[in-house]
Amino acid sequence: MENNLPARYSPNGLHAFTKAVFMAKGMVEHNAQQAADVLLAADLRGIDSHGVARLSGYIRLQEKGRANFNPHVKLVHQTPSTATLDADSGLGLTVAPYAMQLAIEKAKTAGTGWVAIQNSNHFGIAAYHAMMALPNNMIGFAITNASPLVAPTNSTERMLGTNPICIAIPAKKHPAFVVDMATSNAANGKLEIAQRKNREIPLGWVQTNDGKDSTNANELKNGGSLLPLGGHKGYGLGAAVDILSAVLSGANYGPWVPPFVAFLEPKENLPGKGIGHFVGAMRVDAFRPLEDFYKHIDNWIETFKQAKPIDKNHPVLIPGEPELIEEAYRKTNGIPLNTAVQNDLTILANQLNLLDLLQQANCK
Amino acid sequence: MENNLPARYSPNGLHAFTKAVFMAKGMVEHNAQQAADVLLAADLRGIDSHGVARLSGYIRLQEKGRANFNPHVKLVHQTPSTATLDADSGLGLTVAPYAMQLAIEKAKTAGTGWVAIQNSNHFGIAAYHAMMALPNNMIGFAITNASPLVAPTNSTERMLGTNPICIAIPAKKHPAFVVDMATSNAANGKLEIAQRKNREIPLGWVQTNDGKDSTNANELKNGGSLLPLGGHKGYGLGAAVDILSAVLSGANYGPWVPPFVAFLEPKENLPGKGIGHFVGAMRVDAFRPLEDFYKHIDNWIETFKQAKPIDKNHPVLIPGEPELIEEAYRKTNGIPLNTAVQNDLTILANQLNLLDLLQQANCK
Repeated sequence: MENNLPARYSPNGLHAFTKAVFMAKGMVEHNAQQAADVLLAADLRGIDSHGVARLSGYIRLQEKGRANFNPHVKLVHQTPSTATLDADSGLGLTVAPYAMQLAIEKAKTAGTGWVAIQNSNHFGIAAYHAMMALPNNMIGFAITNASPLVAPTNSTERMLGTNPICIAIPAKKHPAFVVDMATSNAANGKLEIAQRKNREIPLGWVQTNDGKDSTNANELKNGGSLLPLGGHKGYGLGAAVDILSAVLSGANYGPWVPPFVAFLEPKENLPGKGIGHFVGAMRVDAFRPLEDFYKHIDNWIETFKQAKPIDKNHPVLIPGEPELIEEAYRKTNGIPLNTAVQNDLTILANQLNLLDLLQQANCK
Repeated sequence: MENNLPARYSPNGLHAFTKAVFMAKGMVEHNAQQAADVLLAADLRGIDSHGVARLSGYIRLQEKGRANFNPHVKLVHQTPSTATLDADSGLGLTVAPYAMQLAIEKAKTAGTGWVAIQNSNHFGIAAYHAMMALPNNMIGFAITNASPLVAPTNSTERMLGTNPICIAIPAKKHPAFVVDMATSNAANGKLEIAQRKNREIPLGWVQTNDGKDSTNANELKNGGSLLPLGGHKGYGLGAAVDILSAVLSGANYGPWVPPFVAFLEPKENLPGKGIGHFVGAMRVDAFRPLEDFYKHIDNWIETFKQAKPIDKNHPVLIPGEPELIEEAYRKTNGIPLNTAVQNDLTILANQLNLLDLLQQANCK
């Protein structure tokens, strides 16, 4: 396993490599373009756990026959403001943007559009999909369920994914308000960082397999579980995300959500199809003239940015601002990839004869 | 101030008294009935901070000219799936159910219905409004902003209310799933309980006026603030609730949300009207045949109730289950009122010549 690649990659180069990997595995170009867009959006925004670090994971799912790279997405149900899609085992990376576009089209005529998706796979960062609403002067929503790692309050059993919620709200003078958060106290990616650094994690992130507090970053490997955001409230929120994403769409829910990693098999006698997402778009001017809305959302943002800070070197941030700062930095300075991810991509590149393309993505 | 009333009150008796109080202050009967329904729902479900404990607060707002007990609610904007209402300074107790009924009617034709409300006052428990969707085979949503007590992450300044989120999802064999939660770590009511018992509160609930952790239940009186649920995630959620409730509707937001207590004056140069709410209803069969949905939501509930408990005496609860257990108990055993609330109601009863009605509400 080689480890002589530099640590920073150009966003365009990494996008071209990612797209080529999907196409080498048979994905049609417009889907490969879309999937690469979603993964690179994560890498640019600093959500390293959801970018090209997962590329080989998607490929393994296809090799196992669990992901269909050229799905025929079917509309199975609709009303003026809603639809349900069967994603035909496609990647959420390509199906969720399709669903979001449908929600946007419905919002144009009905005021709002809401689309539930069954039979899908991991959709990357929720923010990509919700933010599609923004240039349409719409508010976007995106949620998804995920393979179970989180225990409900009072239980030792992993029953829920980290089930994220994203709400994206457009502004005019300022960048959009984008809250994108797991409904667990910590995402699995934060545990992985602590594992690599051999560090303890704060209390409240995980519990042992018999339900005791733990600071061991490897607790999930011992049968432990992640804990919901702020206790029973996060359990309630994560559970609502699971139900809206999967019970409403016809996907698998709770303990039956198929694992992202291809080396773990889905359970038997599944109650639904694939994993589930739920996305939505609301036209701002379905509620209020655009001009009025933009005047007040800009005022909201300015007011919160000026709130008295505890430490004057750390002002109040607007949700989405840290990701935007990271994106500006990485666009200029490249995307850092750690050794494990570089090795993973190098293996893929060698298998698919794409090593040149990966090496061209080097910043230097 | 007398203190010789018994501690438990009959729900029907307390409802009759509450309705009579509103009518004595000029509210028309159907509004008084509705307002009493919402307050008693809180008292039955065990949300003591949002029931008759607030009755005198609503009356003081009217006496100050800040609440209009017989509002002419105006439809100011609409599309097939949306509407915006001007509540004409009415109580949220009566306006939010009206808005929710409009959302339900829109959902019947458009699949979903979403209503933003400006120029309102406190709407009681969010669960009452969201749960109106349930008998219609719909999923209900209700959120509201509230007067600022919560500091954004990094700030010492109170900029957000406890801005609750309620999602109510119908089931068939089992009671509905109802998550109804403040987006702060602790509601103000929990501080009041600790104050009465002279107890310290857990770390994470409040900070001092210079942003330090505190266990002092009286910290808000010293200029401190409540802390958002689980840190910056709760700030993001509470902020989204504020924007959807108020920036979208045309109500006041952030630090400008008028205080509930009549002895505090609203700020000057307000950017909107009153406080704001946002409610919604989604027809289940706008996504999936009812029968399929009910089969799987019942299975979801059974699966989670059977999740392996940490302590076999404390099984996993479904969101809404604790409130339902409390409601069953209080329907039989009466609603407990503490001395402060009893005194408050007695003063009101004396002022309005309704002491007989209050005394008839005694369980014994």
